[in-house]
Amino acid sequence: MERPVDWDSGAIVAVDQTVLPAELRHLRLTTVDEVVDAIRRLVVRGAPVIGVTGAFGVAIAARQHEEPGGRLDQAAVRRDAQRIVDSRPTAVNLRWAVERVLTRLPDGADGVLAEAHTVLAEDERANRTAARRAADVLRDECPDRPLRVLTHCNSGALATMGGGTAFGAIRELAGDGRLEEAIATETRPLLQGARLTVWELHRAGLPHRLCVDSAAPAAMAAGLVDAVVVGADRIAANGDTANKIGTYGLACAAAHNRIPFVVVAPQSTVDADTLSGADIPIEERDADEVVRLAGADTTVPGTRAYNPAFDVTPAGLITAIVTEQQVWRP
Amino acid sequence: MERPVDWDSGAIVAVDQTVLPAELRHLRLTTVDEVVDAIRRLVVRGAPVIGVTGAFGVAIAARQHEEPGGRLDQAAVRRDAQRIVDSRPTAVNLRWAVERVLTRLPDGADGVLAEAHTVLAEDERANRTAARRAADVLRDECPDRPLRVLTHCNSGALATMGGGTAFGAIRELAGDGRLEEAIATETRPLLQGARLTVWELHRAGLPHRLCVDSAAPAAMAAGLVDAVVVGADRIAANGDTANKIGTYGLACAAAHNRIPFVVVAPQSTVDADTLSGADIPIEERDADEVVRLAGADTTVPGTRAYNPAFDVTPAGLITAIVTEQQVWRP
Repeated sequence: MERPVDWDSGAIVAVDQTVLPAELRHLRLTTVDEVVDAIRRLVVRGAPVIGVTGAFGVAIAARQHEEPGGRLDQAAVRRDAQRIVDSRPTAVNLRWAVERVLTRLPDGADGVLAEAHTVLAEDERANRTAARRAADVLRDECPDRPLRVLTHCNSGALATMGGGTAFGAIRELAGDGRLEEAIATETRPLLQGARLTVWELHRAGLPHRLCVDSAAPAAMAAGLVDAVVVGADRIAANGDTANKIGTYGLACAAAHNRIPFVVVAPQSTVDADTLSGADIPIEERDADEVVRLAGADTTVPGTRAYNPAFDVTPAGLITAIVTEQQVWRP
Repeated sequence: MERPVDWDSGAIVAVDQTVLPAELRHLRLTTVDEVVDAIRRLVVRGAPVIGVTGAFGVAIAARQHEEPGGRLDQAAVRRDAQRIVDSRPTAVNLRWAVERVLTRLPDGADGVLAEAHTVLAEDERANRTAARRAADVLRDECPDRPLRVLTHCNSGALATMGGGTAFGAIRELAGDGRLEEAIATETRPLLQGARLTVWELHRAGLPHRLCVDSAAPAAMAAGLVDAVVVGADRIAANGDTANKIGTYGLACAAAHNRIPFVVVAPQSTVDADTLSGADIPIEERDADEVVRLAGADTTVPGTRAYNPAFDVTPAGLITAIVTEQQVWRP
């Protein structure tokens, strides 16, 4: 499987996720401005992919602030690194990956780049392991028959290195003959479920259906869903989990229907410095995402919107948080 | 306020709700085929408006099946009436209104038409009374200050005769200085909230914001919502309530956040013959509504969809069902 983001001779090569599924287009990012813009516009998205992109973004900054003789202007690199971190405040992998490569500043631009490559390789391994463990959890929760699994947003091979976190677990089940159907929510406002998850399900040949976000609770009540499985953008020390807007509502409905609700993410998504969900900054995005769609107004022009990009699911609604290191039942 | 549907010299004149808010266009329906098509395509929508449209639709059928000398071909009228009822199986007001005007078949086409006018007039009075009583309930539930009220789909002057059921309650609060903000969900797939409710809020000059459906639970958790108020398409004898897809998820989230969840509808929406939600037929609509938007594909072409038009909110999640006759706490 092709990587959603990779390094190629001085540039980040990224799948432009804003034009899928109509087109599979690759962009080359060669400046920090381009990296920040790509993260902000969701050209690259998904917590783990954002983390890797941020790590390579710091490598680009380091190359640009390398003085003749190999000395780095470390303060300048750190300023660029902060701009990258600020481009998506909720994603803790981004901050984690950026801080990690910054520890190699004393080794110059090559050291930073080498560390970014290590972040990528470790992330691939971590996500593969987390997905496998999550599939085990799902099999244990529903031992009797092939599963109908509902997922939100996109946590697949486009959002993570290594084939997907929550989506990776679905793929694992399918490989094992244990997937009856995946139901993907469309994930308004930016339709990552309809555009990206369905595209990945289609390419992988897995049985699937799409529903509007608000139909997911009805699907649960109708007995069409055995488990809900989602990724995460940040997990607090107490297990409260920030993920794409709409995740919390799915968790409320899953709890009402006694359906297992499983979060899958690399351990780097767990932020020990964030005590609870109340401490997670939630990015509010532009009203245009809500009031316009495919270039057309969906409502009266000028309408104000409430448009948080993420919400927080309290630990009490989560059956299990699965990382490469642990199965945590908060 | 102009009526969303009315009778004008042999024709039903209806606001075409599919082209709002871009355009305020009126259609004249003069045949049963046109009436069925208008209900099915949601040119007219909202349980009470569908009921009145159905009643006038039977009047059109009666005029067309009137033989020289004034005798009605009652069997033919009943066949047309059944086609009208079948055009939206979940809406009980439609069946109720159609059956009611059919009782006047012995009085000829003029009798049927007179009864349809009576249905309209009574519906206007009923909805106004229900809205006023619902506003009282909301004031009682949240006595301290102006309210932030979240509503789903459109239950306003376009969906009902007489200014709106749930929306009517919001309007009542505003008239009294007790509305701080209305939050409208966009209501995928057909965006009745974004297109119609926001348009009505805008025309009425009421403070409002729009959010994607899946952001409503986050708004509740963030403390932005004092009460949720919705209409209904059918209410079972035990209080289980069918309404626009997404209503059930809002009720789950409201329960988790201990926010009052109030249903407002004319008493004709309560169907004593439907014992519980399990007995309510749920209309499944075409996948195109989900996989295409504003003429463009939102996903991989050919994707299958789960697209129920309604869901059922169990009585246990409902704080109060308010009609012109009662405040029912099921």
